[in-house]
Amino acid sequence: MINMANYPEKVYINGEIVPHQEAQISVFDRGFLFGDGIYEVMVQIGDDFFYGKEHLDRLTSCLKKINLNFDVSILPKEIEKLLEVSELKDKDCLVYIQVTRGVAIRKHAFPKTATPTIVMYAIPFTLPQINQNSIAAITIEDNRWHRCDIKAISLLGNVMANDHAAAQGMYESIFIRNGRITEASHCNVFFVKNNIVYTHPADTYILDGITRQIVIQLCKKLQIEVREEAILEEHLTTMDEAFLSGTTTQIASISKIDHHAYSEDGSIGPIVKRLQQAFLELKEKHKGNTINM
Amino acid sequence: MINMANYPEKVYINGEIVPHQEAQISVFDRGFLFGDGIYEVMVQIGDDFFYGKEHLDRLTSCLKKINLNFDVSILPKEIEKLLEVSELKDKDCLVYIQVTRGVAIRKHAFPKTATPTIVMYAIPFTLPQINQNSIAAITIEDNRWHRCDIKAISLLGNVMANDHAAAQGMYESIFIRNGRITEASHCNVFFVKNNIVYTHPADTYILDGITRQIVIQLCKKLQIEVREEAILEEHLTTMDEAFLSGTTTQIASISKIDHHAYSEDGSIGPIVKRLQQAFLELKEKHKGNTINM
Repeated sequence: MINMANYPEKVYINGEIVPHQEAQISVFDRGFLFGDGIYEVMVQIGDDFFYGKEHLDRLTSCLKKINLNFDVSILPKEIEKLLEVSELKDKDCLVYIQVTRGVAIRKHAFPKTATPTIVMYAIPFTLPQINQNSIAAITIEDNRWHRCDIKAISLLGNVMANDHAAAQGMYESIFIRNGRITEASHCNVFFVKNNIVYTHPADTYILDGITRQIVIQLCKKLQIEVREEAILEEHLTTMDEAFLSGTTTQIASISKIDHHAYSEDGSIGPIVKRLQQAFLELKEKHKGNTINM
Repeated sequence: MINMANYPEKVYINGEIVPHQEAQISVFDRGFLFGDGIYEVMVQIGDDFFYGKEHLDRLTSCLKKINLNFDVSILPKEIEKLLEVSELKDKDCLVYIQVTRGVAIRKHAFPKTATPTIVMYAIPFTLPQINQNSIAAITIEDNRWHRCDIKAISLLGNVMANDHAAAQGMYESIFIRNGRITEASHCNVFFVKNNIVYTHPADTYILDGITRQIVIQLCKKLQIEVREEAILEEHLTTMDEAFLSGTTTQIASISKIDHHAYSEDGSIGPIVKRLQQAFLELKEKHKGNTINM
């Protein structure tokens, strides 16, 4: 539900911090020519990143999956500099990070000598306490690649699916691959049936979202049974509740998928409500605690 | 077999032509953030582009497939300007064209008002008369998205496959999807069995290469039967000949796929030889003929 209306004031590019109007990279950057890079989005609450370590660990693991050699451990200090210059130190904000394979003469195979390009920016952003929106979604065939576990910038499949939803005034497109519900264009998807929570297993067909992992932990804490099993398309209409998870989406109730309404009046179901409340408490507890990135 | 050793001297960006060192785009270009764009590569022989019209028509059709509104008909004049400044007018060269959805605040759905970004460059490049190389290839699971008919810059799947081949000293990776051979990481693939030429049908699982289309036309002219049918992985070793097609690859004989050799001495099979000869004649005939782009 992030509604970013403006460009960030400052952009970090390879150690330099410049006004957004001057934030440029070479057209020979492999991020531009090949979508050859990885990204992350994380949120600072007050003076600390919410699950910052997990986000940076995932960045490390995704870079490794595409054989992009970059030491993520330099980032916390660089992010600190960026926040300072952006006047967002100790303030609620969102940080976007993108690492590409760098600038090289255009050839498909990885260049031998390119230096990775790091682009980051921070914008003021406060997560709503509880996501009160109950959103509508639409299903779409999952035509993306089979390594959705990699948070890559080669996102055209996601972008087209997301636009497909937006064009119809919906928040999300929910992907179906071979009759099984995988995830949404920029969120994970969960269902509830008979008080059991279902979500697609964290294999190569979905991104294992940090908020997805948190939801699973919260379910365990609340003694709600979780099954990492894909829901079949034909069972969509038999589910009791449905929700999305994501870094900025948090936990968002789904009121409607295609023509099927999970709640006629847009009210939020009991399990989603409990998870939202537990997620809020987790954020409250987190505030003031310094978790190292 | 293109071996581009240097950056182009000049780069065209949205009407400006600048030295390659100054060729920069905003980090907020959707080409950089989302791989949200289309590209083309075409070759000028002497004073005319080889199948230039077909390349630009495909660019138009791919842009339409991703709902990117850009009028390709302005390009021939712009390419002329680029070639003039690059001192490549009427010279053998390769032109790279990339159109992205433009610069916008980062949001998955298409921006309402962004202006497309056009990046082009030209480098000296002469197609070898006949591709004498017999190349080695390796098979790999086709984990790319299911819209390979779109020549998109979201190329990480292709890039990883191509690097997989390069790391083993091979020219290409040949994709296998559900047991069927689709195409290669930047070429189309053909097989010959009992004088019949086979290639994957031009559906959404392959890019319908311009050279692929030429090969099919040449087969018809030479009264060689062509079947647009996928070859099964298990039949790879039973084929008589195998070859690649591509704009810069032209027609390249494949001597070996994985551990199977099509020719022990690296010699080129009879059907591939005939097609290469016919392709050479097509180029000779083309020279001096002005085909409008």
